[in-house]
Amino acid sequence: MSSSDIFLGETIGTAVLILLGGGVCAAVTLKGSKARNAGWLAITFGWGFAVMTAVYMTASLSGAHLNPAVTVGIAIKDGEWGDVPVYIAGQMLGAMIGAVLVWVAYYGQFQAHLADPEASGQKPIEGPGPVLGVFSTGPEIRNTWQNLATEIIGTVVLVLAVLTQGLNDSGKGLGVIGALITAFVVVSIGLSLGGPTGYAINPARDLGPRIVHALLPLPHKGTSDWSYAWIPVAGPLIGGAIAAGIYNIAFA
Amino acid sequence: MSSSDIFLGETIGTAVLILLGGGVCAAVTLKGSKARNAGWLAITFGWGFAVMTAVYMTASLSGAHLNPAVTVGIAIKDGEWGDVPVYIAGQMLGAMIGAVLVWVAYYGQFQAHLADPEASGQKPIEGPGPVLGVFSTGPEIRNTWQNLATEIIGTVVLVLAVLTQGLNDSGKGLGVIGALITAFVVVSIGLSLGGPTGYAINPARDLGPRIVHALLPLPHKGTSDWSYAWIPVAGPLIGGAIAAGIYNIAFA
Amino acid sequence: MSSSDIFLGETIGTAVLILLGGGVCAAVTLKGSKARNAGWLAITFGWGFAVMTAVYMTASLSGAHLNPAVTVGIAIKDGEWGDVPVYIAGQMLGAMIGAVLVWVAYYGQFQAHLADPEASGQKPIEGPGPVLGVFSTGPEIRNTWQNLATEIIGTVVLVLAVLTQGLNDSGKGLGVIGALITAFVVVSIGLSLGGPTGYAINPARDLGPRIVHALLPLPHKGTSDWSYAWIPVAGPLIGGAIAAGIYNIAFA
Amino acid sequence: MSSSDIFLGETIGTAVLILLGGGVCAAVTLKGSKARNAGWLAITFGWGFAVMTAVYMTASLSGAHLNPAVTVGIAIKDGEWGDVPVYIAGQMLGAMIGAVLVWVAYYGQFQAHLADPEASGQKPIEGPGPVLGVFSTGPEIRNTWQNLATEIIGTVVLVLAVLTQGLNDSGKGLGVIGALITAFVVVSIGLSLGGPTGYAINPARDLGPRIVHALLPLPHKGTSDWSYAWIPVAGPLIGGAIAAGIYNIAFA
Repeated sequence: MSSSDIFLGETIGTAVLILLGGGVCAAVTLKGSKARNAGWLAITFGWGFAVMTAVYMTASLSGAHLNPAVTVGIAIKDGEWGDVPVYIAGQMLGAMIGAVLVWVAYYGQFQAHLADPEASGQKPIEGPGPVLGVFSTGPEIRNTWQNLATEIIGTVVLVLAVLTQGLNDSGKGLGVIGALITAFVVVSIGLSLGGPTGYAINPARDLGPRIVHALLPLPHKGTSDWSYAWIPVAGPLIGGAIAAGIYNIAFA
Repeated sequence: MSSSDIFLGETIGTAVLILLGGGVCAAVTLKGSKARNAGWLAITFGWGFAVMTAVYMTASLSGAHLNPAVTVGIAIKDGEWGDVPVYIAGQMLGAMIGAVLVWVAYYGQFQAHLADPEASGQKPIEGPGPVLGVFSTGPEIRNTWQNLATEIIGTVVLVLAVLTQGLNDSGKGLGVIGALITAFVVVSIGLSLGGPTGYAINPARDLGPRIVHALLPLPHKGTSDWSYAWIPVAGPLIGGAIAAGIYNIAFA
Repeated sequence: MSSSDIFLGETIGTAVLILLGGGVCAAVTLKGSKARNAGWLAITFGWGFAVMTAVYMTASLSGAHLNPAVTVGIAIKDGEWGDVPVYIAGQMLGAMIGAVLVWVAYYGQFQAHLADPEASGQKPIEGPGPVLGVFSTGPEIRNTWQNLATEIIGTVVLVLAVLTQGLNDSGKGLGVIGALITAFVVVSIGLSLGGPTGYAINPARDLGPRIVHALLPLPHKGTSDWSYAWIPVAGPLIGGAIAAGIYNIAFA
Repeated sequence: MSSSDIFLGETIGTAVLILLGGGVCAAVTLKGSKARNAGWLAITFGWGFAVMTAVYMTASLSGAHLNPAVTVGIAIKDGEWGDVPVYIAGQMLGAMIGAVLVWVAYYGQFQAHLADPEASGQKPIEGPGPVLGVFSTGPEIRNTWQNLATEIIGTVVLVLAVLTQGLNDSGKGLGVIGALITAFVVVSIGLSLGGPTGYAINPARDLGPRIVHALLPLPHKGTSDWSYAWIPVAGPLIGGAIAAGIYNIAFA
């Protein structure tokens, strides 16, 4: 795969991933959305099918990593780091484009939500603002080591599932069925390990939209919770590396 | 594929699509339905499996576009417009047949719902009537440019997913697995981008049933909201064209 | 396929279908079940996966019709009626075995439910009793012609989806993927067309368990609603025949 | 397959199974989880996708039994018992590792839940404690013979579905699609037969985490309900044996 195909694939793919993934958070959260309060199943299936759609669409261009933790895990497994910067650059750019597209698609809903004092929790805004959850993850109970551990554990499951696909798929990598399996692995992680931190399990998925949250002209948006921002970056990268280690010991 | 097979396939397929898609809206909305208030997940999975069933059934006849935006996107991608009128004629006819079948299947429920002053909002009917949502889409917050943008964005995702299928499916087009993937792409768009406008993402899906709503002898049905009707036609067609453009630049 | 394999396959398959399908109705309905009030999505996915499990398990023995409407549709399509009695005999026997197994698996829940005057609606039992819905279908609004039409329409979708599988599956019939597609077609029919009558779409699925309901020694069980019983038998058989007609005209 | 690959595969696979399966129980149950009260569908899909992820990941190493009832069923079917102890040892070790990982991932949630007198039911703790359900199953209505029968029936469905896969999958065993089908069979059993006992259908899934529950230093955890513990061990083993018998009579 050429560097330009990798960059294009990862940018388009991660933009679609965050458009659909951030989209379901907006759909379930914001005032004036038909899907408001659709619940945790809607969020987890929404993210799972977001991954499926994005992977399926861009697998032929870049292999559809769409996640620096996956890129790092594959690099460790294969011992090839040359394309890693191109992958991660595309992922970060795509994540930011996707977050802007969520804002466009839900423009009126953002306005209505932030204009409502009750929904927006306007009065004493300290810490994370009322719509940060549409962009980035945050812990339900703040506990640095547990939050980090939960992100690591979730990402080990994700990356190990990606790395072992070749063993079942006759080396064809992330093909049609692979996209479906990966989707349901992500639903599984969401349902089972998403409770404590909201399962970033992907540094680009969390950091890109958080930057967009900081930049967008949203009134009453509150802080972007930068003190937590390192955990959904470091946790998934550590998890990806551990998964590659387990793969090399147990499966290679 | 012969013109008659295309017309037959698109008519049967779009009729099944709207029967099942409109059906889930009736099931969740109308008085006297066992599925009443089954929620947003039911609606989005209902539409997704409606697409799957219809695509799977008619792929061998017409390729199962079932959506003018898909037809236009494929025409732009391939530069072949000869069959486009036959496709769209079948889609519009099928959509109207499907909407009539929903009315037949839920005949007693329509009667019960419209006879109930509270459920039907009978007293001051102005604008969209109480059962229009079973037939056509409408925005939760009226905002022309946002509503149009949301329909465009949703359709770009749909059509790009359809166009890139050939890249993963070894050119076999919309086969068995393709029908399943397409189903979940549609669930994904519903969950993630359906909140603002109810995701028409298909001109025939919205316009055909809206015409049937205008024609059916339903008491207290209210207006068919014709002032909004151009958005779920124009938005998806623009989205299909943009998707074809992205495909030709990035994937071809 | 030998007659004994057909009989065995249909008996085992329909028993599993009704065990799991009736099981989800028991799970969602009865007192003392962890799944009580799990909702319409649970019921529709429960029946869909019941079909998938049963079809997948017995496809190699009998082709896994598991439904007289499917058997009749295939017989009309192929013009071969020789095995039809064996198929239907197995289906009826299997459906009755499955209904008995539901009673065994939920024995304590049936007892607790029927012993509770409020849950069982004990006082003035006339017409269908309080647990008939675990065994058989019933209309939400009684309307002979609509109820019949709804069962016909639902079964046309089901049987047409089964008949067209061969066109996509390279003639392999109901294989692995076919079982999955069929499952989601059944979920789709449930979500979209199940609201008015509870979607029997299968004469054996309704009549077999209704007979078991009439025979089982359940206190306060009420009538088995025999006046309605012909609709979920006749409707699906008519629907299967219409589907075969559509197939022979449009797809053959 | 070598004994070390079998042991490694079963240990990793069952650890992932219980991490994700126990995880969804923790997510839905514990205070301070974003998924709290997400409902029965979340639990059943969570366990189903847990099976899918674990099977898919480890099928190439050990065949991914991940369940002594499956191992016993296959041993009876094939008449080969040599690897059975290695399989079951790996399954038990993996189940205990998985249960510990759930505790790590939800550490703060366990603390918050057990510290809340109302959530934990602290005052008169007799019998099963307030978080035992995150680890092991328990009956909604205690009835030895029914509880045993329900576990037997559920496991017959599971193991028969596993044994008949070879008939549809051209002997490839638990491959990519097999993992998906198995996932939905498990969802089906959960939705349809999980109401009375919480569907252990796997001795290691129940006994391993119960031991961990007994060992972990959780305040106010209550008893581990050892008097019930034999049912989710014996029931599934009996069910696996019956399934193998049915297979050998009807399908072999």
